[in-house]
Amino acid sequence: MYRSETKIRVRYAETDQMGYVYYGNYAQYYEVGRVEALRQLGMSYRDMELNGIMLPVLSYSIKYFKPAFYDEELTIKTIIKDIPGARIVFEYECFNEKGILLNKGETTLVFINKETNKPVSAPADFVKLLEAKINEQ
Amino acid sequence: MYRSETKIRVRYAETDQMGYVYYGNYAQYYEVGRVEALRQLGMSYRDMELNGIMLPVLSYSIKYFKPAFYDEELTIKTIIKDIPGARIVFEYECFNEKGILLNKGETTLVFINKETNKPVSAPADFVKLLEAKINEQ
Amino acid sequence: MYRSETKIRVRYAETDQMGYVYYGNYAQYYEVGRVEALRQLGMSYRDMELNGIMLPVLSYSIKYFKPAFYDEELTIKTIIKDIPGARIVFEYECFNEKGILLNKGETTLVFINKETNKPVSAPADFVKLLEAKINEQ
Amino acid sequence: MYRSETKIRVRYAETDQMGYVYYGNYAQYYEVGRVEALRQLGMSYRDMELNGIMLPVLSYSIKYFKPAFYDEELTIKTIIKDIPGARIVFEYECFNEKGILLNKGETTLVFINKETNKPVSAPADFVKLLEAKINEQ
Repeated sequence: MYRSETKIRVRYAETDQMGYVYYGNYAQYYEVGRVEALRQLGMSYRDMELNGIMLPVLSYSIKYFKPAFYDEELTIKTIIKDIPGARIVFEYECFNEKGILLNKGETTLVFINKETNKPVSAPADFVKLLEAKINEQ
Repeated sequence: MYRSETKIRVRYAETDQMGYVYYGNYAQYYEVGRVEALRQLGMSYRDMELNGIMLPVLSYSIKYFKPAFYDEELTIKTIIKDIPGARIVFEYECFNEKGILLNKGETTLVFINKETNKPVSAPADFVKLLEAKINEQ
Repeated sequence: MYRSETKIRVRYAETDQMGYVYYGNYAQYYEVGRVEALRQLGMSYRDMELNGIMLPVLSYSIKYFKPAFYDEELTIKTIIKDIPGARIVFEYECFNEKGILLNKGETTLVFINKETNKPVSAPADFVKLLEAKINEQ
Repeated sequence: MYRSETKIRVRYAETDQMGYVYYGNYAQYYEVGRVEALRQLGMSYRDMELNGIMLPVLSYSIKYFKPAFYDEELTIKTIIKDIPGARIVFEYECFNEKGILLNKGETTLVFINKETNKPVSAPADFVKLLEAKINEQ
Protein backbone atom coordinates (compact mmCIF):
# COMPACT_ATOMS: atom_id res chain seq x y z
CA MET A 1 0.00 0.00 0.00
CA TYR A 2 1.41 3.38 -1.05
CA ARG A 3 0.26 6.41 0.98
CA SER A 4 0.89 10.03 0.21
CA GLU A 5 -0.26 13.30 1.75
CA THR A 6 -0.77 16.77 0.39
CA LYS A 7 -2.18 19.99 1.86
CA ILE A 8 -4.78 22.21 0.21
CA ARG A 9 -6.02 25.54 1.53
CA VAL A 10 -9.72 26.15 0.81
CA ARG A 11 -10.23 29.14 -1.52
CA TYR A 12 -13.11 31.57 -1.22
CA ALA A 13 -14.24 30.61 -4.72
CA GLU A 14 -14.67 27.04 -3.53
CA THR A 15 -17.26 27.84 -0.88
CA ASP A 16 -20.97 28.10 -1.63
CA GLN A 17 -23.78 30.02 0.00
CA MET A 18 -24.28 27.22 2.54
CA GLY A 19 -20.85 28.34 3.81
CA TYR A 20 -19.38 24.94 2.93
CA VAL A 21 -16.95 23.81 0.26
CA TYR A 22 -19.20 22.99 -2.70
CA TYR A 23 -19.66 19.22 -2.97
CA GLY A 24 -18.35 19.17 -6.54
CA ASN A 25 -14.99 20.72 -5.67
CA TYR A 26 -13.52 17.67 -3.95
CA ALA A 27 -12.97 16.13 -7.38
CA GLN A 28 -10.34 18.85 -7.88
CA TYR A 29 -8.82 18.27 -4.45
CA TYR A 30 -8.58 14.55 -5.16
CA GLU A 31 -6.98 15.31 -8.53
CA VAL A 32 -4.35 17.38 -6.71
CA GLY A 33 -3.95 14.48 -4.26
CA ARG A 34 -3.23 11.92 -6.94
CA VAL A 35 -0.91 14.17 -8.96
CA GLU A 36 1.11 14.92 -5.82
CA ALA A 37 1.10 11.21 -4.93
CA LEU A 38 2.70 10.53 -8.32
CA ARG A 39 5.18 13.40 -7.86
CA GLN A 40 6.24 12.11 -4.42
CA LEU A 41 6.81 8.78 -6.11
CA GLY A 42 9.11 10.44 -8.64
CA MET A 43 6.61 10.55 -11.50
CA SER A 44 5.22 13.59 -13.26
CA TYR A 45 1.70 13.24 -14.64
CA ARG A 46 2.50 16.17 -16.94
CA ASP A 47 5.42 14.26 -18.43
CA MET A 48 3.34 11.12 -18.73
CA GLU A 49 0.87 13.05 -20.90
CA LEU A 50 3.70 14.60 -22.92
CA ASN A 51 4.93 11.06 -23.49
CA GLY A 52 1.61 10.11 -25.01
CA ILE A 53 -0.21 8.47 -22.10
CA MET A 54 -3.28 10.08 -20.63
CA LEU A 55 -5.28 8.97 -17.65
CA PRO A 56 -9.00 9.76 -17.87
CA VAL A 57 -11.32 8.88 -15.00
CA LEU A 58 -13.70 5.91 -15.40
CA SER A 59 -15.54 6.21 -12.11
CA TYR A 60 -15.61 8.39 -9.04
CA SER A 61 -17.42 8.11 -5.74
CA ILE A 62 -17.35 10.14 -2.56
CA LYS A 63 -19.01 10.05 0.85
CA TYR A 64 -19.34 13.31 2.78
CA PHE A 65 -19.22 13.17 6.60
CA LYS A 66 -18.55 16.78 7.61
CA PRO A 67 -18.23 20.00 5.62
CA ALA A 68 -14.98 21.85 4.99
CA PHE A 69 -14.92 25.59 5.52
CA TYR A 70 -13.23 28.62 4.00
CA ASP A 71 -9.50 29.01 4.64
CA GLU A 72 -9.09 25.62 6.31
CA GLU A 73 -5.92 23.78 5.40
CA LEU A 74 -7.08 20.33 4.41
CA THR A 75 -4.95 17.21 4.24
CA ILE A 76 -5.64 14.86 1.36
CA LYS A 77 -4.35 11.34 1.92
CA THR A 78 -4.06 9.42 -1.33
CA ILE A 79 -3.68 5.66 -1.32
CA ILE A 80 -2.76 3.16 -4.01
CA LYS A 81 -3.34 -0.39 -2.83
CA ASP A 82 -2.71 -2.42 -5.94
CA ILE A 83 -0.12 -2.47 -8.69
CA PRO A 84 -2.00 -1.18 -11.72
CA GLY A 85 -2.59 -2.93 -15.03
CA ALA A 86 -4.43 -0.79 -17.56
CA ARG A 87 -6.52 0.55 -14.67
CA ILE A 88 -5.46 2.23 -11.48
CA VAL A 89 -7.49 2.82 -8.35
CA PHE A 90 -6.78 5.78 -6.06
CA GLU A 91 -8.44 6.11 -2.67
CA TYR A 92 -8.65 9.44 -0.87
CA GLU A 93 -9.33 10.71 2.62
CA CYS A 94 -9.79 14.39 3.36
CA PHE A 95 -9.08 15.69 6.87
CA ASN A 96 -9.42 19.14 8.39
CA GLU A 97 -6.85 20.83 10.67
CA LYS A 98 -8.27 19.07 13.72
CA GLY A 99 -7.67 15.69 12.10
CA ILE A 100 -11.37 15.04 11.55
CA LEU A 101 -12.21 12.94 8.50
CA LEU A 102 -14.46 15.10 6.30
CA ASN A 103 -14.94 12.84 3.32
CA LYS A 104 -13.50 9.83 1.57
CA GLY A 105 -13.62 8.73 -2.02
CA GLU A 106 -12.25 6.60 -4.78
CA THR A 107 -11.46 7.02 -8.44
CA THR A 108 -10.64 4.46 -11.10
CA LEU A 109 -8.60 5.74 -14.03
CA VAL A 110 -7.40 4.07 -17.20
CA PHE A 111 -4.07 4.45 -19.01
CA ILE A 112 -4.83 5.50 -22.60
CA ASN A 113 -2.45 5.80 -25.53
CA LYS A 114 -3.19 9.25 -26.96
CA GLU A 115 -2.42 8.15 -30.54
CA THR A 116 -4.56 5.03 -30.66
CA ASN A 117 -7.04 6.14 -27.98
CA LYS A 118 -6.83 2.57 -26.61
CA PRO A 119 -6.11 1.33 -23.08
CA VAL A 120 -2.51 0.36 -22.41
CA SER A 121 -0.58 -1.07 -19.48
CA ALA A 122 0.69 1.30 -16.82
CA PRO A 123 4.14 2.63 -17.79
CA ALA A 124 6.88 0.22 -16.62
CA ASP A 125 8.90 2.91 -14.80
CA PHE A 126 5.81 3.93 -12.85
CA VAL A 127 5.05 0.33 -11.87
CA LYS A 128 8.66 -0.13 -10.77
CA LEU A 129 8.64 2.98 -8.57
CA LEU A 130 5.32 1.98 -7.09
CA GLU A 131 6.46 -1.58 -6.35
CA ALA A 132 9.55 -0.23 -4.60
CA LYS A 133 7.43 2.08 -2.43
CA ILE A 134 4.89 -0.60 -1.61
CA ASN A 135 7.64 -2.99 -0.53
CA GLU A 136 9.40 -0.27 1.48
CA GLN A 137 6.33 0.82 3.45
CA MET B 1 -40.72 7.18 -10.75
CA TYR B 2 -40.42 10.87 -11.54
CA ARG B 3 -38.32 11.80 -14.57
CA SER B 4 -37.23 15.23 -15.64
CA GLU B 5 -34.96 16.59 -18.37
CA THR B 6 -32.84 19.67 -18.72
CA LYS B 7 -30.35 20.90 -21.32
CA ILE B 8 -26.88 22.25 -20.60
CA ARG B 9 -24.47 23.72 -23.15
CA VAL B 10 -20.80 22.89 -22.38
CA ARG B 11 -18.80 26.06 -21.63
CA TYR B 12 -15.20 26.57 -22.70
CA ALA B 13 -14.23 26.93 -19.03
CA GLU B 14 -15.51 23.43 -18.38
CA THR B 15 -13.15 21.71 -20.81
CA ASP B 16 -9.64 20.64 -19.86
CA GLN B 17 -6.47 20.17 -21.87
CA MET B 18 -7.52 16.62 -22.77
CA GLY B 19 -10.24 18.39 -24.78
CA TYR B 20 -12.93 16.78 -22.61
CA VAL B 21 -15.29 18.19 -20.02
CA TYR B 22 -13.30 17.92 -16.78
CA TYR B 23 -14.49 14.92 -14.77
CA GLY B 24 -15.30 17.08 -11.74
CA ASN B 25 -17.72 19.35 -13.59
CA TYR B 26 -20.55 16.84 -13.88
CA ALA B 27 -21.33 17.46 -10.20
CA GLN B 28 -22.46 20.94 -11.31
CA TYR B 29 -24.44 19.56 -14.23
CA TYR B 30 -26.18 17.11 -11.92
CA GLU B 31 -26.91 19.93 -9.47
CA VAL B 32 -28.56 21.84 -12.32
CA GLY B 33 -30.46 18.64 -13.22
CA ARG B 34 -31.91 18.20 -9.74
CA VAL B 35 -32.79 21.87 -9.25
CA GLU B 36 -34.61 21.90 -12.60
CA ALA B 37 -36.31 18.60 -11.67
CA LEU B 38 -37.66 20.32 -8.55
CA ARG B 39 -38.70 23.41 -10.54
CA GLN B 40 -40.57 21.28 -13.10
CA LEU B 41 -42.37 19.73 -10.15
CA GLY B 42 -43.41 23.18 -8.94
CA MET B 43 -40.80 23.47 -6.18
CA SER B 44 -38.04 26.05 -5.86
CA TYR B 45 -34.89 24.90 -4.11
CA ARG B 46 -34.07 28.56 -3.50
CA ASP B 47 -37.36 29.03 -1.64
CA MET B 48 -36.82 25.82 0.30
CA GLU B 49 -33.53 27.26 1.60
CA LEU B 50 -35.17 30.61 2.34
CA ASN B 51 -37.76 28.64 4.34
CA GLY B 52 -35.01 27.16 6.48
CA ILE B 53 -34.43 23.77 4.86
CA MET B 54 -31.12 23.02 3.18
CA LEU B 55 -30.17 19.92 1.28
CA PRO B 56 -26.47 19.03 1.52
CA VAL B 57 -25.09 16.02 -0.35
CA LEU B 58 -24.21 12.87 1.62
CA SER B 59 -22.80 10.79 -1.20
CA TYR B 60 -22.14 11.05 -4.90
CA SER B 61 -21.01 8.55 -7.48
CA ILE B 62 -20.55 8.68 -11.23
CA LYS B 63 -19.49 6.34 -14.01
CA TYR B 64 -17.98 7.84 -17.16
CA PHE B 65 -18.58 6.03 -20.48
CA LYS B 66 -17.74 8.68 -23.10
CA PRO B 67 -16.39 12.23 -22.85
CA ALA B 68 -18.44 15.35 -23.52
CA PHE B 69 -16.92 18.06 -25.70
CA TYR B 70 -16.96 21.83 -25.92
CA ASP B 71 -20.20 23.46 -27.07
CA GLU B 72 -22.22 20.23 -27.05
CA GLU B 73 -25.75 20.59 -25.78
CA LEU B 74 -26.09 17.86 -23.19
CA THR B 75 -29.32 16.43 -21.85
CA ILE B 76 -29.42 15.64 -18.15
CA LYS B 77 -32.15 13.19 -17.17
CA THR B 78 -32.90 13.33 -13.46
CA ILE B 79 -34.85 10.56 -11.80
CA ILE B 80 -36.46 10.26 -8.37
CA LYS B 81 -37.62 6.71 -7.73
CA ASP B 82 -38.71 6.84 -4.11
CA ILE B 83 -40.74 9.19 -1.94
CA PRO B 84 -38.13 10.77 0.33
CA GLY B 85 -38.02 10.65 4.11
CA ALA B 86 -35.15 12.67 5.58
CA ARG B 87 -33.03 11.50 2.65
CA ILE B 88 -33.61 11.79 -1.06
CA VAL B 89 -31.88 9.94 -3.87
CA PHE B 90 -31.49 11.48 -7.32
CA GLU B 91 -30.24 9.47 -10.27
CA TYR B 92 -28.81 11.14 -13.35
CA GLU B 93 -28.05 10.23 -16.94
CA CYS B 94 -26.13 12.55 -19.22
CA PHE B 95 -26.59 12.27 -23.01
CA ASN B 96 -24.97 14.11 -25.90
CA GLU B 97 -26.78 15.49 -28.96
CA LYS B 98 -26.62 12.11 -30.70
CA GLY B 99 -28.44 10.50 -27.77
CA ILE B 100 -25.35 8.64 -26.57
CA LEU B 101 -25.18 8.03 -22.84
CA LEU B 102 -21.97 9.74 -21.64
CA ASN B 103 -22.19 9.14 -17.91
CA LYS B 104 -24.58 8.23 -15.15
CA GLY B 105 -24.56 8.96 -11.47
CA GLU B 106 -26.40 9.16 -8.22
CA THR B 107 -26.51 11.51 -5.27
CA THR B 108 -28.06 11.10 -1.84
CA LEU B 109 -28.99 14.31 -0.05
CA VAL B 110 -30.45 14.99 3.37
CA PHE B 111 -33.05 17.56 4.42
CA ILE B 112 -31.52 19.69 7.18
CA ASN B 113 -33.20 22.29 9.36
CA LYS B 114 -30.87 25.32 9.13
CA GLU B 115 -31.62 26.43 12.70
CA THR B 116 -31.05 23.13 14.48
CA ASN B 117 -28.66 21.69 11.88
CA LYS B 118 -30.54 18.39 12.28
CA PRO B 119 -32.12 16.12 9.67
CA VAL B 120 -35.84 16.62 9.12
CA SER B 121 -38.52 15.00 6.98
CA ALA B 122 -38.91 16.18 3.41
CA PRO B 123 -41.33 19.16 3.28
CA ALA B 124 -44.94 17.95 3.05
CA ASP B 125 -45.78 20.07 -0.02
CA PHE B 126 -42.82 18.63 -1.87
CA VAL B 127 -43.80 15.05 -1.00
CA LYS B 128 -47.36 15.75 -2.15
CA LEU B 129 -46.23 17.16 -5.52
CA LEU B 130 -43.87 14.25 -5.99
CA GLU B 131 -46.52 11.65 -5.14
CA ALA B 132 -48.90 13.24 -7.65
CA LYS B 133 -46.24 13.11 -10.39
CA ILE B 134 -45.25 9.56 -9.59
CA ASN B 135 -48.89 8.41 -9.74
CA GLU B 136 -49.51 10.37 -12.95
CA GLN B 137 -46.57 8.96 -14.86
CA MET C 1 -23.15 48.13 -33.32
CA TYR C 2 -24.17 44.49 -32.97
CA ARG C 3 -26.11 43.56 -29.84
CA SER C 4 -27.00 40.10 -28.65
CA GLU C 5 -28.65 38.71 -25.52
CA THR C 6 -28.42 35.42 -23.69
CA LYS C 7 -29.86 34.11 -20.42
CA ILE C 8 -27.89 32.32 -17.71
CA ARG C 9 -29.34 30.78 -14.55
CA VAL C 10 -26.98 31.10 -11.53
CA ARG C 11 -25.84 27.69 -10.29
CA TYR C 12 -25.32 26.83 -6.63
CA ALA C 13 -21.66 26.10 -7.37
CA GLU C 14 -21.22 29.67 -8.54
CA THR C 15 -22.22 31.28 -5.24
CA ASP C 16 -19.75 31.85 -2.42
CA GLN C 17 -20.17 32.11 1.33
CA MET C 18 -21.02 35.82 1.04
CA GLY C 19 -24.16 34.52 -0.68
CA TYR C 20 -23.17 36.26 -3.92
CA VAL C 21 -21.99 34.95 -7.26
CA TYR C 22 -18.22 34.73 -6.85
CA TYR C 23 -16.54 37.70 -8.56
CA GLY C 24 -14.43 35.43 -10.75
CA ASN C 25 -17.38 33.60 -12.30
CA TYR C 26 -18.54 36.44 -14.53
CA ALA C 27 -15.64 35.65 -16.87
CA GLN C 28 -17.51 32.42 -17.67
CA TYR C 29 -20.82 34.22 -18.08
CA TYR C 30 -19.20 36.69 -20.46
CA GLU C 31 -17.63 33.80 -22.38
CA VAL C 32 -21.12 32.31 -22.79
CA GLY C 33 -22.35 35.76 -23.86
CA ARG C 34 -19.79 36.12 -26.63
CA VAL C 35 -20.15 32.55 -27.91
CA GLU C 36 -23.92 32.98 -28.10
CA ALA C 37 -23.43 36.37 -29.79
CA LEU C 38 -21.40 34.60 -32.48
CA ARG C 39 -23.98 31.81 -32.76
CA GLN C 40 -26.84 34.32 -33.20
CA LEU C 41 -24.76 35.85 -35.97
CA GLY C 42 -24.53 32.47 -37.68
CA MET C 43 -20.97 31.68 -36.56
CA SER C 44 -19.81 28.79 -34.40
CA TYR C 45 -16.76 29.43 -32.25
CA ARG C 46 -16.30 25.64 -32.04
CA ASP C 47 -16.08 25.43 -35.84
CA MET C 48 -13.72 28.41 -35.95
CA GLU C 49 -11.34 26.51 -33.66
CA LEU C 50 -11.74 23.32 -35.70
CA ASN C 51 -10.80 25.43 -38.76
CA GLY C 52 -7.56 26.43 -37.08
CA ILE C 53 -8.37 29.83 -35.62
CA MET C 54 -8.41 30.31 -31.87
CA LEU C 55 -9.35 33.42 -29.95
CA PRO C 56 -7.46 33.85 -26.67
CA VAL C 57 -8.22 36.81 -24.40
CA LEU C 58 -5.70 39.67 -24.23
CA SER C 59 -7.40 41.77 -21.59
CA TYR C 60 -10.47 41.71 -19.42
CA SER C 61 -12.03 44.25 -17.10
CA ILE C 62 -15.22 44.33 -15.08
CA LYS C 63 -17.00 46.74 -12.75
CA TYR C 64 -19.37 45.31 -10.15
CA PHE C 65 -22.39 47.40 -9.12
CA LYS C 66 -24.70 44.89 -7.42
CA PRO C 67 -24.33 41.20 -6.59
CA ALA C 68 -26.15 38.38 -8.37
CA PHE C 69 -27.77 35.68 -6.25
CA TYR C 70 -28.42 31.97 -6.47
CA ASP C 71 -31.02 30.82 -9.01
CA GLU C 72 -31.49 34.24 -10.59
CA GLU C 73 -31.87 34.21 -14.34
CA LEU C 74 -29.37 36.76 -15.56
CA THR C 75 -29.37 38.45 -18.95
CA ILE C 76 -25.99 38.98 -20.56
CA LYS C 77 -25.98 41.64 -23.27
CA THR C 78 -22.98 41.33 -25.55
CA ILE C 79 -22.00 44.19 -27.84
CA ILE C 80 -19.56 44.41 -30.73
CA LYS C 81 -19.06 48.01 -31.78
CA ASP C 82 -16.29 47.75 -34.34
CA ILE C 83 -15.47 45.51 -37.28
CA PRO C 84 -12.51 43.47 -36.05
CA GLY C 85 -9.04 43.30 -37.57
CA ALA C 86 -6.74 40.86 -35.77
CA ARG C 87 -8.35 41.98 -32.51
CA ILE C 88 -11.96 42.03 -31.45
CA VAL C 89 -13.55 43.89 -28.55
CA PHE C 90 -16.65 42.55 -26.81
CA GLU C 91 -18.55 44.62 -24.27
CA TYR C 92 -20.91 43.02 -21.76
CA GLU C 93 -23.70 44.10 -19.47
CA CYS C 94 -25.21 41.73 -16.93
CA PHE C 95 -28.77 42.35 -15.69
CA ASN C 96 -30.91 40.55 -13.12
CA GLU C 97 -34.58 39.62 -13.52
CA LYS C 98 -35.69 43.08 -12.38
CA GLY C 99 -33.65 44.68 -15.16
CA ILE C 100 -31.05 46.07 -12.76
CA LEU C 101 -27.53 46.38 -14.18
CA LEU C 102 -25.30 44.22 -11.95
CA ASN C 103 -21.97 44.57 -13.69
CA LYS C 104 -20.40 45.55 -16.99
CA GLY C 105 -17.18 44.55 -18.59
CA GLU C 106 -15.04 44.33 -21.68
CA THR C 107 -12.70 41.79 -23.23
CA THR C 108 -10.23 42.14 -26.07
CA LEU C 109 -9.40 38.92 -27.91
CA VAL C 110 -7.02 38.18 -30.76
CA PHE C 111 -7.47 35.86 -33.73
CA ILE C 112 -4.59 33.37 -33.71
CA ASN C 113 -3.63 30.82 -36.34
CA LYS C 114 -3.22 27.57 -34.37
CA GLU C 115 -0.45 26.29 -36.67
CA THR C 116 1.76 29.36 -36.67
CA ASN C 117 0.60 30.72 -33.31
CA LYS C 118 0.55 34.18 -34.93
CA PRO C 119 -2.21 36.79 -35.05
CA VAL C 120 -4.32 36.77 -38.20
CA SER C 121 -7.19 38.83 -39.57
CA ALA C 122 -10.70 37.98 -38.47
CA PRO C 123 -12.18 35.32 -40.79
CA ALA C 124 -13.78 36.95 -43.86
CA ASP C 125 -17.13 35.16 -43.46
CA PHE C 126 -17.37 36.39 -39.88
CA VAL C 127 -16.59 39.98 -40.88
CA LYS C 128 -19.22 39.78 -43.63
CA LEU C 129 -21.93 38.51 -41.27
CA LEU C 130 -21.01 41.14 -38.71
CA GLU C 131 -21.07 43.96 -41.27
CA ALA C 132 -24.51 42.86 -42.45
CA LYS C 133 -25.85 42.87 -38.87
CA ILE C 134 -24.28 46.21 -38.05
CA ASN C 135 -25.80 47.79 -41.15
CA GLU C 136 -29.20 46.16 -40.49
CA GLN C 137 -29.51 47.35 -36.90
CA MET D 1 4.54 49.72 -0.80
CA TYR D 2 3.82 46.28 0.67
CA ARG D 3 4.80 43.28 -1.47
CA SER D 4 3.96 39.66 -0.83
CA GLU D 5 4.48 36.44 -2.76
CA THR D 6 2.64 33.16 -2.91
CA LYS D 7 3.00 30.03 -5.04
CA ILE D 8 0.16 28.26 -6.83
CA ARG D 9 0.43 25.00 -8.75
CA VAL D 10 -1.85 24.88 -11.82
CA ARG D 11 -4.50 22.16 -11.50
CA TYR D 12 -5.73 20.05 -14.40
CA ALA D 13 -9.25 21.40 -13.81
CA GLU D 14 -7.95 24.90 -14.47
CA THR D 15 -6.74 24.22 -18.00
CA ASP D 16 -9.02 24.44 -21.03
CA GLN D 17 -8.96 22.74 -24.41
CA MET D 18 -6.55 25.39 -25.75
CA GLY D 19 -4.12 23.79 -23.29
CA TYR D 20 -3.88 27.05 -21.33
CA VAL D 21 -5.12 28.08 -17.91
CA TYR D 22 -8.64 29.37 -18.60
CA TYR D 23 -8.64 33.18 -18.64
CA GLY D 24 -11.28 33.34 -15.91
CA ASN D 25 -9.27 31.35 -13.37
CA TYR D 26 -6.75 34.06 -12.57
CA ALA D 27 -9.42 35.79 -10.46
CA GLN D 28 -9.08 32.81 -8.08
CA TYR D 29 -5.29 32.97 -8.17
CA TYR D 30 -5.39 36.68 -7.38
CA GLU D 31 -7.84 35.99 -4.53
CA VAL D 32 -5.32 33.51 -3.11
CA GLY D 33 -2.62 36.15 -3.59
CA ARG D 34 -4.42 38.80 -1.59
CA VAL D 35 -5.52 36.45 1.20
CA GLU D 36 -1.93 35.23 1.61
CA ALA D 37 -0.70 38.86 1.49
CA LEU D 38 -3.00 39.60 4.43
CA ARG D 39 -1.88 36.43 6.26
CA GLN D 40 1.81 37.33 5.82
CA LEU D 41 0.93 40.69 7.31
CA GLY D 42 -0.56 38.97 10.35
CA MET D 43 -4.20 39.37 9.32
CA SER D 44 -6.74 36.64 8.62
CA TYR D 45 -9.41 37.48 6.07
CA ARG D 46 -11.50 34.67 7.57
CA ASP D 47 -11.37 36.33 10.98
CA MET D 48 -12.16 39.71 9.47
CA GLU D 49 -15.37 38.23 8.04
CA LEU D 50 -16.17 36.52 11.34
CA ASN D 51 -15.74 39.94 12.97
CA GLY D 52 -18.41 41.37 10.70
CA ILE D 53 -16.37 43.00 7.92
CA MET D 54 -16.53 41.63 4.40
CA LEU D 55 -14.58 42.75 1.40
CA PRO D 56 -16.43 42.41 -1.90
CA VAL D 57 -14.74 43.35 -5.16
CA LEU D 58 -15.75 46.59 -6.91
CA SER D 59 -13.61 46.28 -10.02
CA TYR D 60 -11.13 43.89 -11.56
CA SER D 61 -8.90 44.13 -14.61
CA ILE D 62 -6.23 41.88 -16.06
CA LYS D 63 -3.86 41.91 -19.01
CA TYR D 64 -2.65 38.57 -20.39
CA PHE D 65 0.85 38.42 -21.92
CA LYS D 66 1.62 34.69 -22.01
CA PRO D 67 -0.41 31.60 -21.10
CA ALA D 68 0.19 29.44 -18.04
CA PHE D 69 0.25 25.68 -18.50
CA TYR D 70 -0.76 22.62 -16.53
CA ASP D 71 1.35 21.76 -13.48
CA GLU D 72 3.42 24.94 -13.59
CA GLU D 73 4.16 26.46 -10.22
CA LEU D 74 3.18 30.08 -10.58
CA THR D 75 4.29 32.94 -8.36
CA ILE D 76 1.68 35.55 -7.55
CA LYS D 77 3.13 38.86 -6.39
CA THR D 78 0.57 40.96 -4.58
CA ILE D 79 1.18 44.63 -3.97
CA ILE D 80 -0.58 47.21 -1.79
CA LYS D 81 0.65 50.71 -2.57
CA ASP D 82 -1.64 52.88 -0.50
CA ILE D 83 -3.02 52.82 3.02
CA PRO D 84 -6.70 51.97 2.53
CA GLY D 85 -9.68 54.04 3.58
CA ALA D 86 -13.01 52.34 2.86
CA ARG D 87 -11.46 51.02 -0.36
CA ILE D 88 -8.31 48.99 -0.92
CA VAL D 89 -6.43 48.41 -4.15
CA PHE D 90 -4.42 45.23 -4.71
CA GLU D 91 -2.12 44.85 -7.69
CA TYR D 92 -0.97 41.43 -8.91
CA GLU D 93 1.74 40.01 -11.11
CA CYS D 94 1.77 36.36 -12.12
CA PHE D 95 5.09 34.73 -13.09
CA ASN D 96 5.91 31.23 -14.31
CA GLU D 97 8.84 29.10 -13.12
CA LYS D 98 11.20 30.78 -15.58
CA GLY D 99 10.39 34.18 -14.09
CA ILE D 100 8.40 35.30 -17.13
CA LEU D 101 5.55 37.69 -16.41
CA LEU D 102 2.38 35.98 -17.65
CA ASN D 103 -0.25 38.50 -16.63
CA LYS D 104 -0.87 41.43 -14.35
CA GLY D 105 -4.01 42.80 -12.82
CA GLU D 106 -5.67 44.96 -10.25
CA THR D 107 -8.68 44.72 -7.98
CA THR D 108 -10.43 47.36 -5.91
CA LEU D 109 -12.36 46.08 -2.91
CA VAL D 110 -14.50 47.83 -0.33
CA PHE D 111 -14.77 47.19 3.40
CA ILE D 112 -18.44 46.50 4.20
CA ASN D 113 -20.09 46.14 7.59
CA LYS D 114 -22.10 42.91 7.29
CA GLU D 115 -24.86 44.17 9.60
CA THR D 116 -25.50 47.52 7.97
CA ASN D 117 -24.26 46.53 4.49
CA LYS D 118 -22.54 49.94 4.36
CA PRO D 119 -18.91 50.82 3.56
CA VAL D 120 -16.68 51.31 6.59
CA SER D 121 -13.07 52.30 7.17
CA ALA D 122 -10.42 49.60 6.99
CA PRO D 123 -9.99 47.94 10.42
CA ALA D 124 -7.52 49.92 12.56
CA ASP D 125 -5.34 46.88 13.38
CA PHE D 126 -4.99 46.12 9.69
CA VAL D 127 -4.02 49.69 8.85
CA LYS D 128 -1.45 49.64 11.65
CA LEU D 129 0.16 46.40 10.46
CA LEU D 130 0.20 47.67 6.90
CA GLU D 131 1.76 51.01 7.88
CA ALA D 132 4.48 49.19 9.81
CA LYS D 133 5.29 46.99 6.78
CA ILE D 134 5.25 49.88 4.35
CA ASN D 135 7.65 51.86 6.55
CA GLU D 136 9.90 48.83 7.07
CA GLN D 137 10.28 47.98 3.39
